[in-house]
Amino acid sequence: MVSTASVGIARGATVGDFVARRPTTTRWSDNDMYGHLNNAVYYQLFDAAINGWIMNETSIDPLTAEALGVVVESGCQYFSQLSFPQTLLVGLRISKLGRSSVTYDLAIFPEKAADTDPIAARGRWVHVYVDRSSRRPVPIPAHLRQLFETVTTD
Amino acid sequence: MVSTASVGIARGATVGDFVARRPTTTRWSDNDMYGHLNNAVYYQLFDAAINGWIMNETSIDPLTAEALGVVVESGCQYFSQLSFPQTLLVGLRISKLGRSSVTYDLAIFPEKAADTDPIAARGRWVHVYVDRSSRRPVPIPAHLRQLFETVTTD
Amino acid sequence: MVSTASVGIARGATVGDFVARRPTTTRWSDNDMYGHLNNAVYYQLFDAAINGWIMNETSIDPLTAEALGVVVESGCQYFSQLSFPQTLLVGLRISKLGRSSVTYDLAIFPEKAADTDPIAARGRWVHVYVDRSSRRPVPIPAHLRQLFETVTTD
Amino acid sequence: MVSTASVGIARGATVGDFVARRPTTTRWSDNDMYGHLNNAVYYQLFDAAINGWIMNETSIDPLTAEALGVVVESGCQYFSQLSFPQTLLVGLRISKLGRSSVTYDLAIFPEKAADTDPIAARGRWVHVYVDRSSRRPVPIPAHLRQLFETVTTD
Repeated sequence: MVSTASVGIARGATVGDFVARRPTTTRWSDNDMYGHLNNAVYYQLFDAAINGWIMNETSIDPLTAEALGVVVESGCQYFSQLSFPQTLLVGLRISKLGRSSVTYDLAIFPEKAADTDPIAARGRWVHVYVDRSSRRPVPIPAHLRQLFETVTTD
Repeated sequence: MVSTASVGIARGATVGDFVARRPTTTRWSDNDMYGHLNNAVYYQLFDAAINGWIMNETSIDPLTAEALGVVVESGCQYFSQLSFPQTLLVGLRISKLGRSSVTYDLAIFPEKAADTDPIAARGRWVHVYVDRSSRRPVPIPAHLRQLFETVTTD
Repeated sequence: MVSTASVGIARGATVGDFVARRPTTTRWSDNDMYGHLNNAVYYQLFDAAINGWIMNETSIDPLTAEALGVVVESGCQYFSQLSFPQTLLVGLRISKLGRSSVTYDLAIFPEKAADTDPIAARGRWVHVYVDRSSRRPVPIPAHLRQLFETVTTD
Repeated sequence: MVSTASVGIARGATVGDFVARRPTTTRWSDNDMYGHLNNAVYYQLFDAAINGWIMNETSIDPLTAEALGVVVESGCQYFSQLSFPQTLLVGLRISKLGRSSVTYDLAIFPEKAADTDPIAARGRWVHVYVDRSSRRPVPIPAHLRQLFETVTTD
């Protein structure tokens, strides 16, 4: 794939910039007619990394939690191709931690990439915590904020 | 869902701003545990609208075309919830038409929305045309450029 | 695609055998590397047709309903290829209506197929109604049974 | 989930019956509104396991191979619930190896299941090898047949 002018996402990141990582396998159905991961799949992988991390580190149950993190904005830049059957890593960190909102800085790269390798794709992802019923913003629950602070870079 | 400060995508658009529209049905599997369309689904819908429009209007075969439009950047802002079993419309127009690249301005809204209704989500999508083999940028093929010009707003 | 010996699913059905139909659009991401709808997509379409029909005809809310229809068995035979950007129809009828279980007989074919055309794929699908909490079988709720009887062929 | 009378798929299998296994991660978007893996996802996992195994063990390129394995029939029985963020294993073996067709016997279970545990789901999957252009059946290529024989149980 080709380079593109960056819009709101800084270029030049390398694998080593992303210390918190979660592995993900790919699927035959992830590859589209061009033989590479369809662009929408990256968002499934970001979602799995963020929520898998939160669910593994806390006791949150998405079916009953009172505060839900809903996506109000997402974005991705694609720097190089990835394709099934590669195993990948999703790197995550938090670039901005607000009262109700969390902005994730995400990266995807092959499992065996070296720390000095460029990342293959970079994502931006904003969760706003809302009340399950009213869907109005609420403060990030304390135990989540505590977790988020461990990967916040700002 | 909640409002969010706009990042690179203008707010305030209404359904009537998007004249070129393609219908899309939703699927049970599009709804996630929160009972609304998963954020990654929006990108599947954008992709279907753009490529369906191109394939219906031209004779392009994605399995053999020499110039491929690959996604180098995508993004979405989510303004209000959508969910299965709604039928939706994807509105599309082109905000920037370059030598090799096309920047789409996309919207999603319910099939029965009025022209003055706000859109439910807004997308940004950059295709760069590349050679099938080398994956290096090439000029947008003439018959595609001709089609693209019919929905270009800049 | 090729014929195959039938295993538990009768061959020879035509479009006209399926009177109850629901339209579905396809997506770029539905096509796999072979340029046709990935086999798993057919199950998403069956699911959308069954649940979309039930949700449109009744007032059921999947997030709160006490009795859930969970899939205990599914199957599909693929007779001819379908691919994005085709618009398709999913035909549905019920071949067996039990106390807790419903067996659907499903078909997929192009929107413009004639009644005498063979169907492109045939599905078999068993829902068992269970209690939301215990996940133990319960009788099919009366208003659903009433709906189901309208398309039962046995 | 509940038991169901077996239709063409033998019950009672345990994890230990499936020696050839491939790991798979799950995704937030795999869970549907009932909080468990959507039934169509199982087919994505079967597909990934079969094709990932073939692609890792041979030098086949799905975009250029002359003989394609297309799915003519698939089926699954769901015995117990699985859900994101579980890591799973897909077990595979071949129950019937024909001239052009291969019938897979598949299982899904949690990564940490013991050999004596029952499997969570069982799949049946028939690939027929066809010529890329004509899509007519061809003999299974010799190097694939050699691979297939290593996991054939009949």
